[in-house]
Amino acid sequence: MFKIALLGAGRIGKIHAANAVAHPGLTLSYVVDPVAASAQALAAETGATVAALETVLADPEVAGVIVASSTDAHLDHCLAAAAAGKAIFCEKPLDMDLARARAAAGQLKDARLFLGFNRRFDPSFQALKARLADGAVGALETLQITSNDPAPPPVAYVKVSGGLFKDMAIHDFDMARWLLGEEPSEVFAWGSCLVDPAIGEAGDIDTARTMLRTASGKLCVIANSRRSGFGYDQRIEAYGSAGMVRADNVTESTVQVWREDGAAVDRFQNFFLDRYAAAYRAEMAHFADILAGKAKPAIGYTDGVAALALAEAAGESLKTGSPVSL
Amino acid sequence: MFKIALLGAGRIGKIHAANAVAHPGLTLSYVVDPVAASAQALAAETGATVAALETVLADPEVAGVIVASSTDAHLDHCLAAAAAGKAIFCEKPLDMDLARARAAAGQLKDARLFLGFNRRFDPSFQALKARLADGAVGALETLQITSNDPAPPPVAYVKVSGGLFKDMAIHDFDMARWLLGEEPSEVFAWGSCLVDPAIGEAGDIDTARTMLRTASGKLCVIANSRRSGFGYDQRIEAYGSAGMVRADNVTESTVQVWREDGAAVDRFQNFFLDRYAAAYRAEMAHFADILAGKAKPAIGYTDGVAALALAEAAGESLKTGSPVSL
Amino acid sequence: MFKIALLGAGRIGKIHAANAVAHPGLTLSYVVDPVAASAQALAAETGATVAALETVLADPEVAGVIVASSTDAHLDHCLAAAAAGKAIFCEKPLDMDLARARAAAGQLKDARLFLGFNRRFDPSFQALKARLADGAVGALETLQITSNDPAPPPVAYVKVSGGLFKDMAIHDFDMARWLLGEEPSEVFAWGSCLVDPAIGEAGDIDTARTMLRTASGKLCVIANSRRSGFGYDQRIEAYGSAGMVRADNVTESTVQVWREDGAAVDRFQNFFLDRYAAAYRAEMAHFADILAGKAKPAIGYTDGVAALALAEAAGESLKTGSPVSL
Amino acid sequence: MFKIALLGAGRIGKIHAANAVAHPGLTLSYVVDPVAASAQALAAETGATVAALETVLADPEVAGVIVASSTDAHLDHCLAAAAAGKAIFCEKPLDMDLARARAAAGQLKDARLFLGFNRRFDPSFQALKARLADGAVGALETLQITSNDPAPPPVAYVKVSGGLFKDMAIHDFDMARWLLGEEPSEVFAWGSCLVDPAIGEAGDIDTARTMLRTASGKLCVIANSRRSGFGYDQRIEAYGSAGMVRADNVTESTVQVWREDGAAVDRFQNFFLDRYAAAYRAEMAHFADILAGKAKPAIGYTDGVAALALAEAAGESLKTGSPVSL
Repeated sequence: MFKIALLGAGRIGKIHAANAVAHPGLTLSYVVDPVAASAQALAAETGATVAALETVLADPEVAGVIVASSTDAHLDHCLAAAAAGKAIFCEKPLDMDLARARAAAGQLKDARLFLGFNRRFDPSFQALKARLADGAVGALETLQITSNDPAPPPVAYVKVSGGLFKDMAIHDFDMARWLLGEEPSEVFAWGSCLVDPAIGEAGDIDTARTMLRTASGKLCVIANSRRSGFGYDQRIEAYGSAGMVRADNVTESTVQVWREDGAAVDRFQNFFLDRYAAAYRAEMAHFADILAGKAKPAIGYTDGVAALALAEAAGESLKTGSPVSL
Repeated sequence: MFKIALLGAGRIGKIHAANAVAHPGLTLSYVVDPVAASAQALAAETGATVAALETVLADPEVAGVIVASSTDAHLDHCLAAAAAGKAIFCEKPLDMDLARARAAAGQLKDARLFLGFNRRFDPSFQALKARLADGAVGALETLQITSNDPAPPPVAYVKVSGGLFKDMAIHDFDMARWLLGEEPSEVFAWGSCLVDPAIGEAGDIDTARTMLRTASGKLCVIANSRRSGFGYDQRIEAYGSAGMVRADNVTESTVQVWREDGAAVDRFQNFFLDRYAAAYRAEMAHFADILAGKAKPAIGYTDGVAALALAEAAGESLKTGSPVSL
Repeated sequence: MFKIALLGAGRIGKIHAANAVAHPGLTLSYVVDPVAASAQALAAETGATVAALETVLADPEVAGVIVASSTDAHLDHCLAAAAAGKAIFCEKPLDMDLARARAAAGQLKDARLFLGFNRRFDPSFQALKARLADGAVGALETLQITSNDPAPPPVAYVKVSGGLFKDMAIHDFDMARWLLGEEPSEVFAWGSCLVDPAIGEAGDIDTARTMLRTASGKLCVIANSRRSGFGYDQRIEAYGSAGMVRADNVTESTVQVWREDGAAVDRFQNFFLDRYAAAYRAEMAHFADILAGKAKPAIGYTDGVAALALAEAAGESLKTGSPVSL
Repeated sequence: MFKIALLGAGRIGKIHAANAVAHPGLTLSYVVDPVAASAQALAAETGATVAALETVLADPEVAGVIVASSTDAHLDHCLAAAAAGKAIFCEKPLDMDLARARAAAGQLKDARLFLGFNRRFDPSFQALKARLADGAVGALETLQITSNDPAPPPVAYVKVSGGLFKDMAIHDFDMARWLLGEEPSEVFAWGSCLVDPAIGEAGDIDTARTMLRTASGKLCVIANSRRSGFGYDQRIEAYGSAGMVRADNVTESTVQVWREDGAAVDRFQNFFLDRYAAAYRAEMAHFADILAGKAKPAIGYTDGVAALALAEAAGESLKTGSPVSL
């Protein structure tokens, strides 16, 4: 049993807390949150203790720390935890600022830092990756990543989100890197504001098409929209020399209704916590394996920086209207 | 080029006429129909000549005859054509009366008689049969045949139809024989009147479940209804020792609409002439092959009698409430 | 928080124990099992105490009892728990002997007894039921229940299983009753031994087709095999006057591979604990609601007896070769 | 009955000839082809007469001309037929040279010229267009056009094809214009040679991703490869403000095989003449309607020029590495 602490008792923190409690190899000892009420509520529910960050990091029995604090605190919390010698499970993104993130290389490159790009742990995306690795469709040539949210967030959120590329497409940049097997060397992006004019007034876009190209000529398209109109739309098509592998959306049940106007399948899952429930559980199991020395972090500091660099390059391409080399 | 004649210028006769005209190896020379106007209209459209049956059968240039006359004339027309030495393409069923059909064995068993159970020529059912033959799912064990019409026929039709088993399930009895690879030795049927009370008042049923059993213990269920509520519902599931092959319904297009309430596929094909258009064309090609001596009839007199015997046994089981041995 | 006890620390007992532990409203206080090692292992894992049945029933703090003991102990354990005034969550079947089960009516008919026919809690079957209730396809007319295991059990198990109808089809009899909205009044069954001759030598069948008919003429077919060849095959098609609702099998992921020979979807779930994981969790939540007085048992003593009566009637029909009235 | 003439007795000419013969409102009177043997064979099969172009155009009974000659002759044949006052059904593309095509505006803009972009007549793409027009998914925002050939053509063909954009993507540029409801104002393209190095040596690409943007910000991605690895891959996804409509690939039959490794559907159609058989028939019916004065050409000179302009812009973007404005 490894004792761990949770920084951040918000929505995603609660998920991680529940998964930590349910994991037979982990004990959630501490909850840290600047909002005392949130910390206390979650601690009560999980049997953990509310504590200050210093206390947690000073406790030699704490083997690992989950960083689920607000995005602007991620990097500082990672640095503090790394300095204290704790294993780290940090929510994405590492940071919003590429320069700042790069500057932390000395302290974080060799830390036991697991960066939680949850989609890599989704069973369907893992199956897709496994089929590619098995050579089921030959050598990978092109990639189509579709990643649309069910509905746009409030504009207040958009304003502090870092923009579509850093907030939303960052997942897809990580997916692309994970699947392409080769670093993208060039980025080109177009964006529009088609969903909500208020998003445009806030200086952001809500619809984008981003293209990545690798040195060997592999091509990847990332399609993003803040609103699919039909649920959580997270799909991948990977073309190889001998065919295509795809991972599709998930419906709420297998029920179909056949009527005169055709067959209708059930609603698509609409909420990322439903769609990625299994992925979050698998992330926690991976963190337990890291603590037990059975695994090295599948995603680390370098991946966090690389995804951020792609997001920044996409933003630059959007501004300049030209492809950006990396 | 083989010259052929068509007996019957009704709905199905017109289909066969069009397919004969389009076939490069056939010339439609004559149309025969008691209703002069029908015969003339179809002859004008196809470049054929209207003639009496005697003229047709006496013409030594006529190699084959398509029997698409009314059901009660099928057997007599087959007998006359066989006596004249013509090859025959006869619409199903051979006859409504099992004793009468059996009595024609002497004249028809060795005739070049092709009985048009069109579903055997459907590309999907043929693909299913081919998979079974390839051993894709091992040795066949059980069969589920679903065969529901889009909507019930007028009661006037029901009254002269010969009843659900001879009119509708006869196709499924033929399918079962074709796929089981073994004659059914026992039949059990239940029927209800759930769709239209007028069908019940006419002495028929509109919903049935029929079970067939072979000597080796293979089990087959035939599900029939006069109304699916969603289109032409013609499906087969064949379970073998290593899995299952199925043939599904056909939609009008591949279009799907994804909305908040789920994904909807296009309407199912609703009309048997659409669903089986390819099958009717393939039947005509098969008849041309028979005329050219390249093929023997894939379905013949014996098959027509056997399907009729199963339909009669099902009707008896319905009446007695007990299984009927064949 | 309600304290509950678990009778039976076998495979299904462990599932219920894990779900009880994870439920915020339940505390698993006791584990009872004649095999001391099993009881101790599960108690250690869940923080419960090993105890004798008498202790458990005598503890006034124990609000409910989960009966997951061996099938032949179900009824006695229910009777004892009911006598002690505990709420009961009993695994199916209630008993193997219809007469014995009926004889317990006086003690159990009004007990807070929840009988765990897990499939009623499957999200897809629940969605199907909800669509029927909504009138999405009009009034129900016919039902097709397909229920095939991935692979046959060891013959040793078959010998003590009570036979295909009581061991396997009992789930489907309950499903039929739940969905038909009307008691079946007649049963007809055919069975074969096609999967494993040893099953036949043990006096059982491995393949069956059972038909149910209600007073109003609704027809239901239950298709069973001990081996599908492709995974856990649990499907339902419900035809109404305006179409059809179906619930399909579940695949391990949404991944598809498109190659020259067509598109292949991922494996079907192969293990009932995977397929019905959500159903077992929902059962426990329902039991917690019963304990809290928020719900009455969705499935009770009467349902257990009725399913058993159908299984016995099917067995009789199999023996006599004739339909059996209920 | 309208008399028509066919220029070009090659592969696509034969398709049009067969459809013309089968159409009740058309008579194929002449076949013109520089290769006498081809012309004679097709004339013999269809009952037409072999003739020189001048004869055909001088015959006042010829109402329409099908231009299915080699691509470099399309424009000249259209000009000659237009000068002779004939209605024209011209195969795509109008010409390979944008300047030349534009120079013909005076003679062709008002001619009865129907340009055969066959995909607009595909039942599934038409159904998709109809759903968009019905507002089934609200206002269109983005478009994903996937258009991959089964396997690359011989390099000899590639060399004279005009390149991927003019030879292959030209269909997709037309599709985009048809569906976007707004002219693209900007094009950006990346291309790679991943399928066959010989294609690269011939100065062409075999894999491309092209993005189109309209003035209002609608975004369209066109994915092209000379080789899908699994058949003819022709799909469209159209996202609107309230969901998504898609048209999918077509399989050879509805057969599925369910085995331990999952469910496999039948092969995808592999040949454009199969996939678009219905579209070619519908084109001919449209041409008959034009001749009868019942319809104006659904696709005309302007569409041919516009698609060509997009192809040329894509080629320029590929060369310069920058977006190209139209």
